[in-house]
Amino acid sequence: MIILTIILMYISIKLGNHLIKKFVDRQIKSNAMLSLDSQRAKTLGEVLKSVLKYLVYFLGIGSILSNLFNGMSFTFASIGGVAVGFGAQSLVKDLINGFFILFEDQFGVGDYITIGEFSGIVESIGIRTIVIKDFSGDVHSIPNGSIIQVTNHSRDNIRFIVDVDIAYEENIDNAINVIKKTCEKFEEQNEDIREPIQVLGVNALNASSVTIRVIGKAKPLKQWETERELRKLIKIKLDEDGIEIPYPKTQLINLNLEKERI
Amino acid sequence: MIILTIILMYISIKLGNHLIKKFVDRQIKSNAMLSLDSQRAKTLGEVLKSVLKYLVYFLGIGSILSNLFNGMSFTFASIGGVAVGFGAQSLVKDLINGFFILFEDQFGVGDYITIGEFSGIVESIGIRTIVIKDFSGDVHSIPNGSIIQVTNHSRDNIRFIVDVDIAYEENIDNAINVIKKTCEKFEEQNEDIREPIQVLGVNALNASSVTIRVIGKAKPLKQWETERELRKLIKIKLDEDGIEIPYPKTQLINLNLEKERI
Amino acid sequence: MIILTIILMYISIKLGNHLIKKFVDRQIKSNAMLSLDSQRAKTLGEVLKSVLKYLVYFLGIGSILSNLFNGMSFTFASIGGVAVGFGAQSLVKDLINGFFILFEDQFGVGDYITIGEFSGIVESIGIRTIVIKDFSGDVHSIPNGSIIQVTNHSRDNIRFIVDVDIAYEENIDNAINVIKKTCEKFEEQNEDIREPIQVLGVNALNASSVTIRVIGKAKPLKQWETERELRKLIKIKLDEDGIEIPYPKTQLINLNLEKERI
Amino acid sequence: MIILTIILMYISIKLGNHLIKKFVDRQIKSNAMLSLDSQRAKTLGEVLKSVLKYLVYFLGIGSILSNLFNGMSFTFASIGGVAVGFGAQSLVKDLINGFFILFEDQFGVGDYITIGEFSGIVESIGIRTIVIKDFSGDVHSIPNGSIIQVTNHSRDNIRFIVDVDIAYEENIDNAINVIKKTCEKFEEQNEDIREPIQVLGVNALNASSVTIRVIGKAKPLKQWETERELRKLIKIKLDEDGIEIPYPKTQLINLNLEKERI
Amino acid sequence: MIILTIILMYISIKLGNHLIKKFVDRQIKSNAMLSLDSQRAKTLGEVLKSVLKYLVYFLGIGSILSNLFNGMSFTFASIGGVAVGFGAQSLVKDLINGFFILFEDQFGVGDYITIGEFSGIVESIGIRTIVIKDFSGDVHSIPNGSIIQVTNHSRDNIRFIVDVDIAYEENIDNAINVIKKTCEKFEEQNEDIREPIQVLGVNALNASSVTIRVIGKAKPLKQWETERELRKLIKIKLDEDGIEIPYPKTQLINLNLEKERI
Amino acid sequence: MIILTIILMYISIKLGNHLIKKFVDRQIKSNAMLSLDSQRAKTLGEVLKSVLKYLVYFLGIGSILSNLFNGMSFTFASIGGVAVGFGAQSLVKDLINGFFILFEDQFGVGDYITIGEFSGIVESIGIRTIVIKDFSGDVHSIPNGSIIQVTNHSRDNIRFIVDVDIAYEENIDNAINVIKKTCEKFEEQNEDIREPIQVLGVNALNASSVTIRVIGKAKPLKQWETERELRKLIKIKLDEDGIEIPYPKTQLINLNLEKERI
Amino acid sequence: MIILTIILMYISIKLGNHLIKKFVDRQIKSNAMLSLDSQRAKTLGEVLKSVLKYLVYFLGIGSILSNLFNGMSFTFASIGGVAVGFGAQSLVKDLINGFFILFEDQFGVGDYITIGEFSGIVESIGIRTIVIKDFSGDVHSIPNGSIIQVTNHSRDNIRFIVDVDIAYEENIDNAINVIKKTCEKFEEQNEDIREPIQVLGVNALNASSVTIRVIGKAKPLKQWETERELRKLIKIKLDEDGIEIPYPKTQLINLNLEKERI
Repeated sequence: MIILTIILMYISIKLGNHLIKKFVDRQIKSNAMLSLDSQRAKTLGEVLKSVLKYLVYFLGIGSILSNLFNGMSFTFASIGGVAVGFGAQSLVKDLINGFFILFEDQFGVGDYITIGEFSGIVESIGIRTIVIKDFSGDVHSIPNGSIIQVTNHSRDNIRFIVDVDIAYEENIDNAINVIKKTCEKFEEQNEDIREPIQVLGVNALNASSVTIRVIGKAKPLKQWETERELRKLIKIKLDEDGIEIPYPKTQLINLNLEKERI
Repeated sequence: MIILTIILMYISIKLGNHLIKKFVDRQIKSNAMLSLDSQRAKTLGEVLKSVLKYLVYFLGIGSILSNLFNGMSFTFASIGGVAVGFGAQSLVKDLINGFFILFEDQFGVGDYITIGEFSGIVESIGIRTIVIKDFSGDVHSIPNGSIIQVTNHSRDNIRFIVDVDIAYEENIDNAINVIKKTCEKFEEQNEDIREPIQVLGVNALNASSVTIRVIGKAKPLKQWETERELRKLIKIKLDEDGIEIPYPKTQLINLNLEKERI
Repeated sequence: MIILTIILMYISIKLGNHLIKKFVDRQIKSNAMLSLDSQRAKTLGEVLKSVLKYLVYFLGIGSILSNLFNGMSFTFASIGGVAVGFGAQSLVKDLINGFFILFEDQFGVGDYITIGEFSGIVESIGIRTIVIKDFSGDVHSIPNGSIIQVTNHSRDNIRFIVDVDIAYEENIDNAINVIKKTCEKFEEQNEDIREPIQVLGVNALNASSVTIRVIGKAKPLKQWETERELRKLIKIKLDEDGIEIPYPKTQLINLNLEKERI
Repeated sequence: MIILTIILMYISIKLGNHLIKKFVDRQIKSNAMLSLDSQRAKTLGEVLKSVLKYLVYFLGIGSILSNLFNGMSFTFASIGGVAVGFGAQSLVKDLINGFFILFEDQFGVGDYITIGEFSGIVESIGIRTIVIKDFSGDVHSIPNGSIIQVTNHSRDNIRFIVDVDIAYEENIDNAINVIKKTCEKFEEQNEDIREPIQVLGVNALNASSVTIRVIGKAKPLKQWETERELRKLIKIKLDEDGIEIPYPKTQLINLNLEKERI
Repeated sequence: MIILTIILMYISIKLGNHLIKKFVDRQIKSNAMLSLDSQRAKTLGEVLKSVLKYLVYFLGIGSILSNLFNGMSFTFASIGGVAVGFGAQSLVKDLINGFFILFEDQFGVGDYITIGEFSGIVESIGIRTIVIKDFSGDVHSIPNGSIIQVTNHSRDNIRFIVDVDIAYEENIDNAINVIKKTCEKFEEQNEDIREPIQVLGVNALNASSVTIRVIGKAKPLKQWETERELRKLIKIKLDEDGIEIPYPKTQLINLNLEKERI
Repeated sequence: MIILTIILMYISIKLGNHLIKKFVDRQIKSNAMLSLDSQRAKTLGEVLKSVLKYLVYFLGIGSILSNLFNGMSFTFASIGGVAVGFGAQSLVKDLINGFFILFEDQFGVGDYITIGEFSGIVESIGIRTIVIKDFSGDVHSIPNGSIIQVTNHSRDNIRFIVDVDIAYEENIDNAINVIKKTCEKFEEQNEDIREPIQVLGVNALNASSVTIRVIGKAKPLKQWETERELRKLIKIKLDEDGIEIPYPKTQLINLNLEKERI
Repeated sequence: MIILTIILMYISIKLGNHLIKKFVDRQIKSNAMLSLDSQRAKTLGEVLKSVLKYLVYFLGIGSILSNLFNGMSFTFASIGGVAVGFGAQSLVKDLINGFFILFEDQFGVGDYITIGEFSGIVESIGIRTIVIKDFSGDVHSIPNGSIIQVTNHSRDNIRFIVDVDIAYEENIDNAINVIKKTCEKFEEQNEDIREPIQVLGVNALNASSVTIRVIGKAKPLKQWETERELRKLIKIKLDEDGIEIPYPKTQLINLNLEKERI
């Protein structure tokens, strides 16, 4: 039985590799709407071969062990079956999810993505785990089965927000005009900006200040730099024009304390 | 066996496509109460065909693999059955949920929706995932199976809220009148407003101020702009009429410190 | 087999509709204690027919597909059975819960309810989802299976609370009397109030103020308006009577700094 | 088969009702230690009858439907069995939990209880849901299966707490004496107090004040009223005796700024 | 069949009670290491009898009902089996956990314990629920199955902590000496203290103060009283010795504002 | 059948005890690499015997009961099997986890450990629960099955941290030197310190102060005492050398209020 | 049966060890792309042998026990099977996950990693648990099955961030230049820095200050030290050049209190 299993393992790897190769070749040749482009087809082929190999090893060894203990009793077999089956389900889920991630092209290597609490540049996409590296240099390994919702920050231009606080005493329209001019000048000089910067107006009436919000869109990964530069320019311009960026203010009350506690 | 499976796969795709086509045609022709309109029927047909195709591929390959290992032992088969069955259940859940999302029309492409912690404009609705894009440019892929409660912000006019803080010393009725007039003038000039703006009255007595709340409804996605404009107008008008928007106030107590610590 | 299934589907829809119709008729005719009133019976009948129709479609197609793959292997069948069974359980849960929501009458269309984190007016009650619309205009679709605890705000008069802060130096009994009189006058003029307004007394001794709490009950959805009006009246009355609503107070200590750091 | 099922349903309801009636009668007659009192026995009988009726309806219809689809295939049957079985488990859990809630008498109609995040007066105890109504007038429907830990606030006298802050400069023992006398006088006049009020002493040394804690027990639902009244009395008494309830205090430091930044 | 079941129920109760009685008797007589003491054995016997009785009732009725529907179809039977089996698992878990709680003696009636978010004195330990009553008078019913980690506050002497803040300007060693002497005097007069009070030293350097921590151990449930008394004594002693307990301090900076905004 | 079960129970306890004894003896005699030391082997033997005894009791009683109800119906048997099986799984998990905790020696009696939210000294390690006692005197019983991640604080020297805030106006290098000298002197006198104390430098620039961090390692459970002593010494030394530990500072701005609100 | 099991256990250990040895030898000899290097192959061999040994012990004993109780009843066997199977699934999951952690090389002994809420240096990687030790000296044991996402901090250079707050009145470009020069000088002298330090510009406009952000990358585990040193240097340099690091600022308003409360 054990020998038979080993032979079967050998045959299935050979046969599987052959079938995968054929599938890849046909995908490359055919130009039909739903076939994969050749780059992707080759990658998929490589991945499928390695998947097949380790799967067959894993199943073969598992099968031999299970055969050995199989003869003993039905009860015991069912205990083992339940335990191993449930224990292995997260592995199976990893593989199925990994297959769909490769298949659906939600993100590619080099994209800046967020999965759950981790953000970073995708380093590699494997059949069981993907690896992302964040800006602090940390490397996160994430099993595919634990990936549910994916946010891709590299598919489109990314928005930046600059909030400026001006004093209640300032003329709002005047301040907005000053900010607008600064933005226009900045836009001309900066190539990373992809959509006209908008001065949205009075975003909030705070305790000590009126908030003016400015938004725009920049090339992915350039939004932070653009935001910082624009913030500096607006701050300097407001100072030049004498528009107050207020400190926290407190009004002291000194009513006559005529009333006395009873 | 393997050959038979492949033939079966071929036949079931052909047959399935034929049946789907017929179903779509009958839906378009029939005018009964519960049949689908022709636009939707065609879309559904396309989706169903692609679903069928990938399902048959997936099941076919799975079936061939399972046949190969099937001969080995019952224990092993049940281990694999449990593991793969459980591992694949989230995929099945995705497909079933996806079917109902298409079927029940909870939201359409272009709607502004919220699913769990993600908000954005719907970019595409697929059989396994939907894709939404938020205002910052991030693209979120959400598996249908993880969608539970959906909030659609584009079905109806959306409310905006402007809270204005006035000083305790001001005449409240006077302030409310000033605000009301501003709102009426604003309403005449603004086409995005869909319901008369209401000045609700004294919403809260805060530490240093009395809050007057103003609400109204605007066309979806126009609520933020409308809100910002109205906020600016009210702020300017209150300044003109000399109604104080107070800074945080603190009253200093200087009681005679006659008592000494014992 | 496939043809047989289709015939079965046809028959079961016809038969099911007939039985539902009979059940509805008998419910309307009978006047027994536990039978449903005619309005509800008809609604239930319509819902049941649509449920039956889609259920038969769904089951029929599933059955045909499962027959096609059924011939292949027991292992594969059990994998599919587990995967589809578990994947579909949330759908079944939706239908069962939906049935009980219709049956138990916990809330009706037009009620203002809270389910989990969503509040709003019920727009429609379906067999798989209910739809509620909140005051901001957002439309929430909630699958019945995810509904656990339901809060209905429209079954009874709703309480409103007005908390008023007065200075520590004021005479509390005097302040309570002033507030009481204001409430009584307000009660006479306001038709939405359903229970006498109570001035509960000293609810808290805060850092700078003594809180007096006032409660009452109003018609559902009228509580916020009533609360705002009463708050305004009390604020004006306290000002008229010279009862201080205090600003935050701080006492400055200027002890002799004779001790020096060692 | 279908006809047989309907006959079975009819018989089982008749028989079940008969058995329930007998059980109730025997419980009322017998005076053994573990038998139920007659009031509870009747209620239980009514509940059991209604349970039986709806259970039989539900099971009968389910059985007929399952028979129709039963003939098709084993795979399909197991899919359906798993899906419906799991989907229905929360319903079964509701019924079992409901039975135990009726049986164990953890709370009764009219009690003030807390279940999870909801508190309120119990309006009704059903076999699938209990309904509680809180003081704001909201009505909460809670399925029995989601009830885990129950807090009953109506089984015993309930504690109230009054925390009083006095200045650091005051004599603590003197203040405690003043508070104690106030409590004794209050205790004599108030009938809702069930245990002597205790002045516990210095509960905390705060930034600007020393906290004296006072506790007592009152009749359920009377604790808030008692607490408010006692708080008012203590506040007034402390004012009369000139014991300071301090405002937040800050000590300003004006050390000579001889050191200069290097 | 039904009659047979009822007879079986009768016999199993009789037989079970007999066996339980025997077991209890043998436990009382035997003096072996692992046998239970007689008090506990009797209690366990009573509990087991009541468990048996209700279990047999429950199982008997369930069995009769299941027999009635059993004849119908295998599919239906398996649906019911899964649904009821899963629905009832939390009940079974309650009973098993309850058995171990009685068996392992983690806490007894009268102990002050914490389970999850609830703390209180144990009122009763049942086979399905335990009941605890907290100091506010609330009665909590907790199903045994939801009990995971248990904290028993009555097994050992309990620590109390007094944190005293002194001014930065004070001599720390002097303050520690003053506090130490107070603690020693307090220790002599107080019988509830079980371990010498320790003055741990400088626990933190805060914004305006240096925190000295004092700890000790007292009889269970006496820790709060002891803590409050010691806190009062230390406060009074520090006042007497002129050691400052500081108010929040702020240092005002008035640098020359020579630099002007550009 | 019942009698047979009881005989089987008796035999299996006798046989099991014999086998355990043999296993223990062989472990003690053998000196192979993987055999257990004799102390541990004996402990394990005792634990295994008690486990065996209660397991056999439990299983025997369960088996008898299940035999009684077994004759009735397959449906009922499967209901019971599912319910009891699932209900008992957490018990089985406790035993398996307990076995591994004893086997892997992650912590021993007397270690100071943290499991989830509970920290304390390990009092006993049982086959179903471990008991830990924290410094406040509370005794926590934790089922082994709920133990996932364990932190052992007694395996190595433990770090202590002293953060000192100095004024912005101070010379940082000077302050660091003063602190360093204090640490060196402290290190010489204190025997609990296991690694040289390091003055790490400027850890943060705060609103009113510069934070200097000092770290070192001490014998387990001595870290708090060492930390407090070192903190006191540094505070006193800084005072002596006239290095300011600053109070919160605020700079008041009195710009000319020439601009008036429009 | 029992004897047979013990013989089987003996044989399977011998056979397994032999197969593992062969596998290791072949891996070492072969130089193919997917074979393991010899160091890793040996380690894996040792681990597999110990895994096999304990697995066979565990399974053997379990099998013997299950055989003993097997004869009794099908119901009982299935109860036990479910309970033990589910109870043991977390053990199986640990082993599978452990295998993949060894196999995929996500981290090695000595790496600084984060798993869930625990961070530290990896001490050992076992088949069931990994052990990490954090900088405070705590030792964390983490079962492999509970490891989902792993962050490795030792794979790449790690970023450090220094945020400096300067006064609103300062010239921003001037301040940035001063900081830049300091960073360049620091970079030359420090060998742990791996990427040029960047002065990113105005990161935020705060209430009382403008934040300038500086980032760079250092050798793993050196980032904190580098950060502290750079922070000190910048602080000293800013002082030297007279660039203000501001204290919190508050502007006092003393408007004429002409308006009086009505």
